Amino acid sequence: MTVREIAEIVGGVVIGDESLSITGLSGIKEAKEGELTFIANNKYRPLLKLTKASAVIVPSDINNSVSASLIQVENPSLAFAKIMAIAGPEPVTFKSGIDPTAVIGNDVIIGKNVSIQPYAVIEDKVEIGDGSIIGACVYIGHYTRVGKDSLIYPHVVIRERVLMGARVIIHPGTVIGGDGFGFATVKGVHHKIPQIGTVEIGDDVEIGSNVTIDRARFDKTYIGNGVKIDNLVQIAHNVYIGENTIVVAQVGISGSTVVGRNVIIAGQAGITGHITIGDNSIIGGKAGVTKNIPPNTHVTGFPARDKWEDMRLQAYSRRQPEFIDKIKKLEEKIEAMGRKIKDIYGEEEPENN
Amino acid sequence: MTVREIAEIVGGVVIGDESLSITGLSGIKEAKEGELTFIANNKYRPLLKLTKASAVIVPSDINNSVSASLIQVENPSLAFAKIMAIAGPEPVTFKSGIDPTAVIGNDVIIGKNVSIQPYAVIEDKVEIGDGSIIGACVYIGHYTRVGKDSLIYPHVVIRERVLMGARVIIHPGTVIGGDGFGFATVKGVHHKIPQIGTVEIGDDVEIGSNVTIDRARFDKTYIGNGVKIDNLVQIAHNVYIGENTIVVAQVGISGSTVVGRNVIIAGQAGITGHITIGDNSIIGGKAGVTKNIPPNTHVTGFPARDKWEDMRLQAYSRRQPEFIDKIKKLEEKIEAMGRKIKDIYGEEEPENN
Amino acid sequence: MTVREIAEIVGGVVIGDESLSITGLSGIKEAKEGELTFIANNKYRPLLKLTKASAVIVPSDINNSVSASLIQVENPSLAFAKIMAIAGPEPVTFKSGIDPTAVIGNDVIIGKNVSIQPYAVIEDKVEIGDGSIIGACVYIGHYTRVGKDSLIYPHVVIRERVLMGARVIIHPGTVIGGDGFGFATVKGVHHKIPQIGTVEIGDDVEIGSNVTIDRARFDKTYIGNGVKIDNLVQIAHNVYIGENTIVVAQVGISGSTVVGRNVIIAGQAGITGHITIGDNSIIGGKAGVTKNIPPNTHVTGFPARDKWEDMRLQAYSRRQPEFIDKIKKLEEKIEAMGRKIKDIYGEEEPENN
Repeated sequence: MTVREIAEIVGGVVIGDESLSITGLSGIKEAKEGELTFIANNKYRPLLKLTKASAVIVPSDINNSVSASLIQVENPSLAFAKIMAIAGPEPVTFKSGIDPTAVIGNDVIIGKNVSIQPYAVIEDKVEIGDGSIIGACVYIGHYTRVGKDSLIYPHVVIRERVLMGARVIIHPGTVIGGDGFGFATVKGVHHKIPQIGTVEIGDDVEIGSNVTIDRARFDKTYIGNGVKIDNLVQIAHNVYIGENTIVVAQVGISGSTVVGRNVIIAGQAGITGHITIGDNSIIGGKAGVTKNIPPNTHVTGFPARDKWEDMRLQAYSRRQPEFIDKIKKLEEKIEAMGRKIKDIYGEEEPENN
Repeated sequence: MTVREIAEIVGGVVIGDESLSITGLSGIKEAKEGELTFIANNKYRPLLKLTKASAVIVPSDINNSVSASLIQVENPSLAFAKIMAIAGPEPVTFKSGIDPTAVIGNDVIIGKNVSIQPYAVIEDKVEIGDGSIIGACVYIGHYTRVGKDSLIYPHVVIRERVLMGARVIIHPGTVIGGDGFGFATVKGVHHKIPQIGTVEIGDDVEIGSNVTIDRARFDKTYIGNGVKIDNLVQIAHNVYIGENTIVVAQVGISGSTVVGRNVIIAGQAGITGHITIGDNSIIGGKAGVTKNIPPNTHVTGFPARDKWEDMRLQAYSRRQPEFIDKIKKLEEKIEAMGRKIKDIYGEEEPENN
Repeated sequence: MTVREIAEIVGGVVIGDESLSITGLSGIKEAKEGELTFIANNKYRPLLKLTKASAVIVPSDINNSVSASLIQVENPSLAFAKIMAIAGPEPVTFKSGIDPTAVIGNDVIIGKNVSIQPYAVIEDKVEIGDGSIIGACVYIGHYTRVGKDSLIYPHVVIRERVLMGARVIIHPGTVIGGDGFGFATVKGVHHKIPQIGTVEIGDDVEIGSNVTIDRARFDKTYIGNGVKIDNLVQIAHNVYIGENTIVVAQVGISGSTVVGRNVIIAGQAGITGHITIGDNSIIGGKAGVTKNIPPNTHVTGFPARDKWEDMRLQAYSRRQPEFIDKIKKLEEKIEAMGRKIKDIYGEEEPENN
């Protein structure tokens, strides 16, 4: 493809040579002559002058004259993704149809063009929507519904009575619908509380590898439309996650907490149970959220507080040695003053009251 | 069931209409007319006036006159759990017997009424106790013993020589008996140390999804009777956990650490290796424990310290801006005083010594 | 074996009775008469006097006269590991050959003496090196290459196009090559960015249980020779880890971060994306690394900073109550002084400027 052809596909404006031929795709650091790359993260803007790429997809506000041809677009990530989907390696495909080794229970409803891979185990009364792929060794429990055009990677376990929407992607090793962690403790002994609720997952949800999403004690744990969950995340019983929220790797959300829409929860953050996180909030990496967060708030740290407040306290904390120095100097000055006053006043030092 | 019938089952005292008919179970926020709910967490007490439930199981000290009928019991969670077990959806059942696709090694001892589901792999010399269920695709390594009446969910991996007690529940994706993480480093190269010990798990233990419990270097990693472990927990080689301890999601316990009985370790806490956590201690969420903790202690924060000490330091930390302000005011006052003293005394300001 | 025979195997110097017969191996706390133990961690040196072991492998600088025979060596861990490998329980073995239940795709190249266990699924064009063991239910995706003499435990999932070196060990439940977590967000909706890169793993790498290592957006996520990764670790797309680095349990490394050689990353630490960690650095447990770390640096805390700086700030933080007390006393003294000065000077207190 030429630079001009690429610009047409992504609806971009070319600055520089349109006729260059592009032979590969790469990151801005690794790109070689003949390759196309892009800049999405502002941090990488200085690399524009250093890259060996022949063409770079850039945000509209970049128009430096550099040796590479530039293709200006509104969203470089999205534009580059489009080209990757066209020019990248052929995605792996799975035969449609049910592999003879798959174990299919009674009264299972399987849609059109479904692929069920080797050693999948589908229990009674499961429903699988049109066009979905069930990977090798996947386990799907009784009464669970997989929506259409979904991709369930190998070794996912989805227990009974889970309801899932369309175009859901679940990566390997993830467990949906395990029992919520609930016990009634009597004289130091913990008695299991039945977890009779379920999990409901909306449309266009993507869930990473080795994630755990527990079923509700009653009612349901809920993952809204468009939610994206990274690897090794823990979502406890009865959690509610609003649509288009992003949950980064190793986050933990405790029981019955409600997370709003379009929230971003960065890696390794933890959220306590029974609280509410407002829409459009951002929770920083490793933050520990211990109380309700209003909408449109950016919190960081542990205990999590307003980002600017947290930065200010962090800055003060770093300056502690300086402040302690000041206290010491003040003590010395006051002692010296005391002596002077004594000279003048002819009495012992002023007492503390 | 009527309110009276429910009260009889849980041994409770009714305040209000005993004859009401209950048609469903729910949480206190979501409950509708005709439903039964309960209050266990004090945080939800104010909702008693707002709930639409027709009956509420409450602790004995709640006797408000509200529109709902109240059923007073000692432990509302436990009482509600009893009703859920009776009135909830029929639990999923697995046929007993060995599925023809299961691979069973030599000299395997299988008790009465055992269910082994499709594609389970049971290696040589394994022993499985009466009444246990081995889920689909479960792997059980050589010489391992599963006790009676246990429930091993699909895709659990238990490696060789692990010993497990009765009534153990293990949720999907958990790995028991992986090698401890041990290397001897010689000139920067890490040589594997054989991990020839094992894991021993007591009776009535429940282990969540995608947990990892490593085998010991020698001797054993030990999980006491009645211990409950949540999802994505890491338990390293040679850890000892005393009975009835609770380990919440994403906790990590490093090698050779000894945790006492009836300890609670809250979510995402980390405990360093080779230390001792006393009986009945509580370790707060996200705490980082770096040294021994005496019995009956509540620690929080990182590095973890006594909860009240930690709260006090946190409070001081929040008030830093105020203290720094005070320092600034003191500096100003002293400077002003210095000038006054100079006026009186007719000399340069007092020097620092 | 006698103490003398053991000393010969490990190349050690005996202090004490060489003729003692050793009947077992154990940790220093648990050891009984007749057993051999060792001291590697300095913390356990005081136990040398208390151990009931008959012989102890010790570092060369220990020569106390105690009742046990000592065997002095340079690296006691390594020496003890040698004896464990000889005297420990026979390791579990797997038949070589392909189990008839394994599903093998087209154009798969399988080396000599390979063992493929029940229900493994090997997709088209996979290559498996000589002497490797593929555990039960392992899934290996299209075009992936497993090197020679590797041990892939049950229930590992390795997706397509992953390249792995020789002598790699992967523990159960680990997922290699899941999609990187990348989305382009347009008006609040997250569009998936294809992840067309792969994962490359060097020789002599060991990876724990339930780890997740994502494939690159393009190019590759890279794990260098001799890297050792513990359980439940998250390694995001395009991360680069230099050789012989150690990554302890529950660590998370965000996208495109470069970790040098011989780095140690302790448990539950988190590293943000797009940064560089220099060679030979140490990152403390639970540290949160937010910016580049130079080589040979030891950082701790969150945000991570130089260990000594962090300890100093922690110490100051603990002394806050004391400093605040000092401020209060200064305020009182100054007020008292102000009164005195007023007496002398006959005017109102000095003003703040």
